[in-house]
Amino acid sequence: MFRSREKTCIKIQKSPNDRFKRTQGKYRLSIQVSGRRLPKMLSIGKEIMDRHPIEIQIEKADKTIVAEDFDTLLDIYTDDAVLVVAPGRNAKGKESIRKAFEAIAVYFKNGLQVKQNGMAILESGNTALVLANTLISAPNLPVTERKATYVFNKTSDGNWLCSIDNSYGHEIINKKT
Amino acid sequence: MFRSREKTCIKIQKSPNDRFKRTQGKYRLSIQVSGRRLPKMLSIGKEIMDRHPIEIQIEKADKTIVAEDFDTLLDIYTDDAVLVVAPGRNAKGKESIRKAFEAIAVYFKNGLQVKQNGMAILESGNTALVLANTLISAPNLPVTERKATYVFNKTSDGNWLCSIDNSYGHEIINKKT
Repeated sequence: MFRSREKTCIKIQKSPNDRFKRTQGKYRLSIQVSGRRLPKMLSIGKEIMDRHPIEIQIEKADKTIVAEDFDTLLDIYTDDAVLVVAPGRNAKGKESIRKAFEAIAVYFKNGLQVKQNGMAILESGNTALVLANTLISAPNLPVTERKATYVFNKTSDGNWLCSIDNSYGHEIINKKT
Repeated sequence: MFRSREKTCIKIQKSPNDRFKRTQGKYRLSIQVSGRRLPKMLSIGKEIMDRHPIEIQIEKADKTIVAEDFDTLLDIYTDDAVLVVAPGRNAKGKESIRKAFEAIAVYFKNGLQVKQNGMAILESGNTALVLANTLISAPNLPVTERKATYVFNKTSDGNWLCSIDNSYGHEIINKKT
């Protein structure tokens, strides 16, 4: 609850019948100005609250790739994660993945842009598969869509980490590693 | 070593420098007839021995789907596996998956054919992602290629089981489940 000196009060409360879930939590916004409750109850934050934690992790990964903040980026991977650097070429483990991203950054003239253009997540126990339309571009690369496939594993403390990062999707078939 | 009464001897021996691995084991075949070693050493079984155990599981799954042997098929799935029945429609758990396959069999006039036309497997710890070009056909369906994506998990006894079965690949994006 936040109360400013002007007595404008913004109260965010959980709907009584909803159990709080990170992915499905629903909140109601009640706005009071000078003690008077505004008549309309608004549902807010649904878009944010409905996002799967993996979607938030991927967004974080994309931002850190663009910012070349590889320390933060590596936090999103499991220790023995596999990154497809190019069809037929994989990096395994955090140190190899860091080196690969450093090389990728240089290759793309330190101007790589990454964003997702649609995504689906399939979850089974502590494993999840992500299908994503990933858009990348760079000073030396026009906007290119990749049919990316990612696998995430949930840790014992409920954190989703990427164990397999294959932005090339089916392009890797028949490419010997 | 097998020795028949005719003194024909087939000796299968491991190459001395190869450590035995299910996926990478290499065997040499030495054929002796009446005690005389044939001059040519043959490498056999490489194609079989190089196959990833997941590839063998998928082949088994395809055969059981064609044979409508759903008891054997279900052995390949984890208890809480997810099957994409159609984009936007998932079956979760063995009983739901069985019902879905029974319905699929009827839908395809009990004549569904499934085979893989190229596959890549990415492994990280006890999790693996499979990208496959899956060909399906039926009396009421011309040969159709799907960009399939499967996730397998390795059990404590080393068996790979399918936890996510999405033969539709990226087609499921933007389909609400």
